[in-house]
Amino acid sequence: MIDPQQALALVLQAAVRRLPRRVPLAVAGGLTLAQSVRADRDYPPFARAAMDGYAVCTADAGRTVKVVGEVAAGQDVKIEVTAGHCLEIMTGAPCPPGTEAVVKKEETEPAADRVVLPTRILAGEHIAPRGSECQSGRLVLESGQTLTPLAVAVLASFGLESVEVFPRPSLAIITTGAELVPLHTGETPVPLDPLGPGQIRDSNGPMLGAMARELGIEQPDELHAEDRLEAILRALEQAADKDLVLLTGGVSAGKYDLVPDALQSYGAQRIFHKVSQKPGKPLLLAQKGPQLLFGLPGNPLSCHLCCHRYVAAAIRQMEGKPPLPGPFRGRLAEPVRPRRSRTFYVQARAEPLAQQSAAWQVHPLLGASSADMFACHRANCYVEVPPGETPIPAGEVLEFTWLGPAPWSY
Amino acid sequence: MIDPQQALALVLQAAVRRLPRRVPLAVAGGLTLAQSVRADRDYPPFARAAMDGYAVCTADAGRTVKVVGEVAAGQDVKIEVTAGHCLEIMTGAPCPPGTEAVVKKEETEPAADRVVLPTRILAGEHIAPRGSECQSGRLVLESGQTLTPLAVAVLASFGLESVEVFPRPSLAIITTGAELVPLHTGETPVPLDPLGPGQIRDSNGPMLGAMARELGIEQPDELHAEDRLEAILRALEQAADKDLVLLTGGVSAGKYDLVPDALQSYGAQRIFHKVSQKPGKPLLLAQKGPQLLFGLPGNPLSCHLCCHRYVAAAIRQMEGKPPLPGPFRGRLAEPVRPRRSRTFYVQARAEPLAQQSAAWQVHPLLGASSADMFACHRANCYVEVPPGETPIPAGEVLEFTWLGPAPWSY
Repeated sequence: MIDPQQALALVLQAAVRRLPRRVPLAVAGGLTLAQSVRADRDYPPFARAAMDGYAVCTADAGRTVKVVGEVAAGQDVKIEVTAGHCLEIMTGAPCPPGTEAVVKKEETEPAADRVVLPTRILAGEHIAPRGSECQSGRLVLESGQTLTPLAVAVLASFGLESVEVFPRPSLAIITTGAELVPLHTGETPVPLDPLGPGQIRDSNGPMLGAMARELGIEQPDELHAEDRLEAILRALEQAADKDLVLLTGGVSAGKYDLVPDALQSYGAQRIFHKVSQKPGKPLLLAQKGPQLLFGLPGNPLSCHLCCHRYVAAAIRQMEGKPPLPGPFRGRLAEPVRPRRSRTFYVQARAEPLAQQSAAWQVHPLLGASSADMFACHRANCYVEVPPGETPIPAGEVLEFTWLGPAPWSY
Repeated sequence: MIDPQQALALVLQAAVRRLPRRVPLAVAGGLTLAQSVRADRDYPPFARAAMDGYAVCTADAGRTVKVVGEVAAGQDVKIEVTAGHCLEIMTGAPCPPGTEAVVKKEETEPAADRVVLPTRILAGEHIAPRGSECQSGRLVLESGQTLTPLAVAVLASFGLESVEVFPRPSLAIITTGAELVPLHTGETPVPLDPLGPGQIRDSNGPMLGAMARELGIEQPDELHAEDRLEAILRALEQAADKDLVLLTGGVSAGKYDLVPDALQSYGAQRIFHKVSQKPGKPLLLAQKGPQLLFGLPGNPLSCHLCCHRYVAAAIRQMEGKPPLPGPFRGRLAEPVRPRRSRTFYVQARAEPLAQQSAAWQVHPLLGASSADMFACHRANCYVEVPPGETPIPAGEVLEFTWLGPAPWSY
């Protein structure tokens, strides 16, 4: 049995960044850039008026000059600005030849076809010179950067209608367990299947689907396999083209825990099985070529923790992102009893301590067991409690990890 | 002109929570629940074995007993456990009648069709009694809660294949500006339109599209209108069924700034126009019935700030979420010069201060102007600098707001 740090290191060693793919700009936001981008032109591409007003010569300060034309944004007016002659100009328009400054409309006074200019005009005033924001040839975006909405704007400015990115991994979820009755959660309503005695509804499938969507994987394949080796194997074959496969249940050492054998028959290489953690001890990781396969425990909280801690890190690494969100620290609101020999991961809710700078109070949400999802569905983080004997008192500062996406990891 | 706090208050007053809608569970994750949910049955629905082992009577501790059957998960075996007779049982299986404890397989020794039990067996050991995690009738989820993946698991457990939520608002983006050449960012490649002199590529449309997707709105309508009143009006009519309309450009006081007039012709009521902030001073908010319309400035950074600060708050409120992510505080890495009479919003990058608990260093990313997107596409937050004369020195602690989704606001 390995410890949670070794397990995470092995996950990151096995998760290979995906090959770059060209995607339309409309769906590139949030993905990681797999190319560098240089400005193919100056920006602005012309001297641009930054205000609504008049394009003038500085020598005309204090004078009344004739308005000989108008330039709106998008136009290309060739009338020259000369002493005694100005053009009306709009924000965003290119300055006509001869423009030395743009005077704000509010600082002038109209007089028939003329305008009275202010007594002080600075050369270059309210003009964004050509190339002042970005010069042609400049490296504007580098491979490895996450595409923020502003980075998408930069790509659009240089006419990139599509872009090379490290795409998100494709994903299949295979639920196993003879006691599980799958739900029909798709668009078409279907009558609810009755539950037999000894049966429960599958909750891990929908939960993992929601986690995958939270991580940006919009269409995970969802399969259910009966507790027979051939059924699990058939589901694995069906998911053979996916980058990532999550199996739930059947991963302990019980008589009907067939996932380890099915993975072997499928030809996957086992990387590890069992981690000294609670919940989630039976976790299994295997690999077949570039495909990564996780055997997640069937208990809902075990499944949840393993997905947040290990699968999410693998997904981030596969899409070229920093795999681990930076740790936060917070004060424990209630004592927690560690587990003797296993790292204990406690679902918790972190709330800001009012009026204090960047201080968090962390409320552990302890359920009746690792199958108990009712106590902690409002969790927004989990706390890592190292193995030990002595209870950790309230007020102690511990590291915690946010569930869900982390904006600071942009 | 109103200040940024008044503007935000008016946005929140105008943004009305959407009417509840029933959606399939598969797409409910991340949305806000619009119904309360009670357990329709006990959970677990039967006394459940928590380990692989044997269902036994406690009086048999230390004895060798006969194995008279087997219960796998999902089965319903009626063979009774009596003194001297046990059944093999798997994790997740219902305990057969008469079971007083489940003994772990590792603590027993097989002996042909019998098994040697440990000398100490606690009553109820390794059994999760019926209803021990959740009793029938208990309120498990309340209206207003954000559906975390674990909350989705709870819904699945009680057989809810669809659920009432406050849906995300529908959104149309209307770009205006004669200088703009729209990109073709969709799936079908189209040859790039040539740029005329005085023209630039539209970057606000793709940027707002990326921001909308980041906020969970997957299919925003994207329209472009020429700088003519009728063209803008036609685009507004086309977007009449959307909850939210974002117009970009044409919102200042220039000759071709037609958005305010177009909104009036469309029949929208103006709520405010112009906010004492930099960037984003020309911001306009209007309303027509339940539809909210934002006139966003055309400068990319102004558009970006207004979308993050005002539009995102409106979207969160419309989908029943807390509208404002809690403030963070961080140390300024470089000095910032405030604007005399306007609140100054500075794009910035917050990085954790190594080895220190929950402390952030904030690097301001100042561009050449509010049209300069090249300096700050790596921003992950913005800093609010109140109006004033005196430069704010490095090291000062200021409030900042994360860009992108905030996991702690679950």
